[in-house]
Amino acid sequence: MLEDKSPARTPLDQLGEFLLIEKLTHSFTLQNTSSVVGIGDDAAVCDFSAGQTVLTTDLLVEGIHFDLSYMPLKHLGYKSVVVNLSDVYAMNAKPAQITVSLAVSNRFSLEALEELYAGIRLACQNYKVDLVGGDTTSSTTGLILSITATGQAAAEKIVRRNGAQANDLLVVSGDLGGAYAGLQILEREKAVFKANPQSQPDLTPYSYSIERQLKPEARKDVFELLDEWDLVPNAMMDISDGLSSEILHLCKQGQLGCHLYEEKLPIDPEVVSICEEFKINSSTAVLNGGEDYELLMAVPQSAFEKVKNHPWLSIIGHFTDKQEEAYLINGLEQAIPLEAQGWQAFPED
Amino acid sequence: MLEDKSPARTPLDQLGEFLLIEKLTHSFTLQNTSSVVGIGDDAAVCDFSAGQTVLTTDLLVEGIHFDLSYMPLKHLGYKSVVVNLSDVYAMNAKPAQITVSLAVSNRFSLEALEELYAGIRLACQNYKVDLVGGDTTSSTTGLILSITATGQAAAEKIVRRNGAQANDLLVVSGDLGGAYAGLQILEREKAVFKANPQSQPDLTPYSYSIERQLKPEARKDVFELLDEWDLVPNAMMDISDGLSSEILHLCKQGQLGCHLYEEKLPIDPEVVSICEEFKINSSTAVLNGGEDYELLMAVPQSAFEKVKNHPWLSIIGHFTDKQEEAYLINGLEQAIPLEAQGWQAFPED
Repeated sequence: MLEDKSPARTPLDQLGEFLLIEKLTHSFTLQNTSSVVGIGDDAAVCDFSAGQTVLTTDLLVEGIHFDLSYMPLKHLGYKSVVVNLSDVYAMNAKPAQITVSLAVSNRFSLEALEELYAGIRLACQNYKVDLVGGDTTSSTTGLILSITATGQAAAEKIVRRNGAQANDLLVVSGDLGGAYAGLQILEREKAVFKANPQSQPDLTPYSYSIERQLKPEARKDVFELLDEWDLVPNAMMDISDGLSSEILHLCKQGQLGCHLYEEKLPIDPEVVSICEEFKINSSTAVLNGGEDYELLMAVPQSAFEKVKNHPWLSIIGHFTDKQEEAYLINGLEQAIPLEAQGWQAFPED
Repeated sequence: MLEDKSPARTPLDQLGEFLLIEKLTHSFTLQNTSSVVGIGDDAAVCDFSAGQTVLTTDLLVEGIHFDLSYMPLKHLGYKSVVVNLSDVYAMNAKPAQITVSLAVSNRFSLEALEELYAGIRLACQNYKVDLVGGDTTSSTTGLILSITATGQAAAEKIVRRNGAQANDLLVVSGDLGGAYAGLQILEREKAVFKANPQSQPDLTPYSYSIERQLKPEARKDVFELLDEWDLVPNAMMDISDGLSSEILHLCKQGQLGCHLYEEKLPIDPEVVSICEEFKINSSTAVLNGGEDYELLMAVPQSAFEKVKNHPWLSIIGHFTDKQEEAYLINGLEQAIPLEAQGWQAFPED
C-alpha cells in the first residue's frame, strides 16, 4: 500500500480537522481574480461580476455523520441539504443551486433512494434552490452523500468570519442544545429497542429536540430579517460544531476576546428537562452540543435596540479587545476561559 | 433499518446509472432564472450575468474507482481533479475553481494525504484553477474523494450534448483505448506481485498506456484550439465511459443516427501491441475502454478542412438522420449496430 511507504507517520487523530486542513492547503495560492475567498470560511466566494457567488460543500458518511437506524432517509436527504444552505446563509448570501453526489452499496433499493431524494426535493422547495447536478455511484459499504451549494449576494453584503470588532454584540438566533438533546433521546431509544423490539416509547415530550436533530432548518428567516433591516453583521457563521467552538473561531479570526454570559444562553424548556433527565449540565449542551444550525454573529452596538426586541435573536455577550481572552461569565460572575469541545472530525480510537 | 421497510425493492443493479438518476430526479423543476442547465449534461450551467458558470462534481470511492495498490496517492489527487476539469472543457468552458472533500479512515497518515494534495496542487497549477473549499472528515473504511469544479464561458460558447445535426462530423481528440490497456497491465502486475513480491517487471514498453491510466490529462489544448479557430461544436462531451456509450448519448440527445468508421478510430501503436498481448480486439478497447478523457464532438461540415489537417483531431464518422440508427462500419463495409458496454456504476454482483 503506497500510503504506508512514508517513514514518518503523523496519525490524523493527533491533528484535528483545522490543523489538518491548514497543513494540506497552506501552499495553495489563488490564481484567478474570480476567486475572492478560498478555504477558511463557511463557503468560498467567487466574483462572477454581477454580485458574488458563494460555493460550499459537505461530505456525509454513514456511521460517522448519521445512523440510519433512527434517521429516516427522507429526513437525511432534507438535513443534508439544509446543513449546506446554512453555510450559504452564514455568508449572508441567498442559496441558488445544489449538486448532490451519492455512493451507495447494493443493500439500498431504488425505493430507499427515492425516500432520500424526496427529502432533498422538499428542502429544494422550501428553500427555493435548484438541484443542478451530481454523481451517483456504488460504494463498498454504506451510504456516502456529498452536497455542494451555491449562493449569491451583492459583494458588500457578504459576511466573513473575520470582521468582528471590539464591543460588537455577540448575537445568536433561535435556541441551542436541542439537536444534542434530541440525539441523547434517540441513542437511548435505540438501545432500548435493541433490548426489547416490542417497546413502544412515547416520544411526545421530546418532539422538539428530536426534530432539531432529525429535521433541522437553516435560518432563511433570519437572513431575510437582516436584509429587511439593511443590517450587515461584521462577522457571521453558522453553529454546526457547538457554540463555544464557533465563538472561539470568531475571536481568533477577528483577533479579539469576548464575554459570553451563561444566563443569556437561549435554551428551550424541553431541552432543560431532557438535560435534567440525563444529568447533563444544560449550559454544556448549549456550549458544546453542535448541529443546531443557528446563526452566530457580531453586530455593531448601533443595532442594539432592533436586535434586543426581536424574538428570533438573543444578545449573549460582546467582543472585547484583543488583549483579552474569551470568557464565559457564569451566574456567580466568575469568568471561566471558554473551551472548544465540539464535533471532532477525526475522533481518537 | 429504515431503508429495508419498504415492501417493494428494485435492486440498483437492474436499473443502471442513467435510469436511476432519471428516476430520482425527474420530479425536480428548476426554480431560479440563474439555473440554465440542470442534470443531464457534463456540468450544470448557471447564469451569473456576465458569461455563464458551469459546475460539475465527481465522487470517487476506494475499491470502486481506484486501487491504491498501484495508484500512487499523488496521481490519484491529480487524476481526481483532471476528470472534473475534463467535464468543464466538455462544456467548452474554462475551469476556474474546485472544491475537494475527503473522508479517510485512520489508516491514512498526514503524509499520505499530503501526497494526495501534492497531486491536487499540481493539477491546480497546470490547469490554473483555484482550490476554494471542501470538507474533511473520517470514514469507516477507505478513502472517499468528492470534487466539484466550476468554469466560465460566454453564453454563446457553451456546448451541450444535445445540439448535433445530421451530417455533422463526428470528431474525437487524441487517441483512445490507452487508459484501458494501461489498466490491464497494472492489474496483471498486481497479480504477479502478489505471487512473487520480488519480481521487478520492466514496464517501459507500456509507459504510455500506464500514464494514460494513472495520470490522464484534460484537453485544455483542444479547448484553446477551438477558441483560436472560433469554432463552436454543435455538441460535445468528454469520453469517460467509452466511445460507444458516449456516441450513443450524442445520438440520443440529438435524435440522430451515425456512421462510425472502425478504420478511422485513433489508436496508439503501443495500445495495439498490448491488445495483441492480451488477445483483446483493439477496436473493443477503443469503443468500450473508457477513462480516456478525450473530447468527442459534433462539428459542422464547414470546418472539415481545419479539422482534417490537425494532428490532435480525428474525423471518425458523421451523424445521420433520425430515421437511422448508430452504426459501426467495419473494414468489410458491414454496418454493425453500436452498443454501449462502458463503465457500470452499479455492477451486478
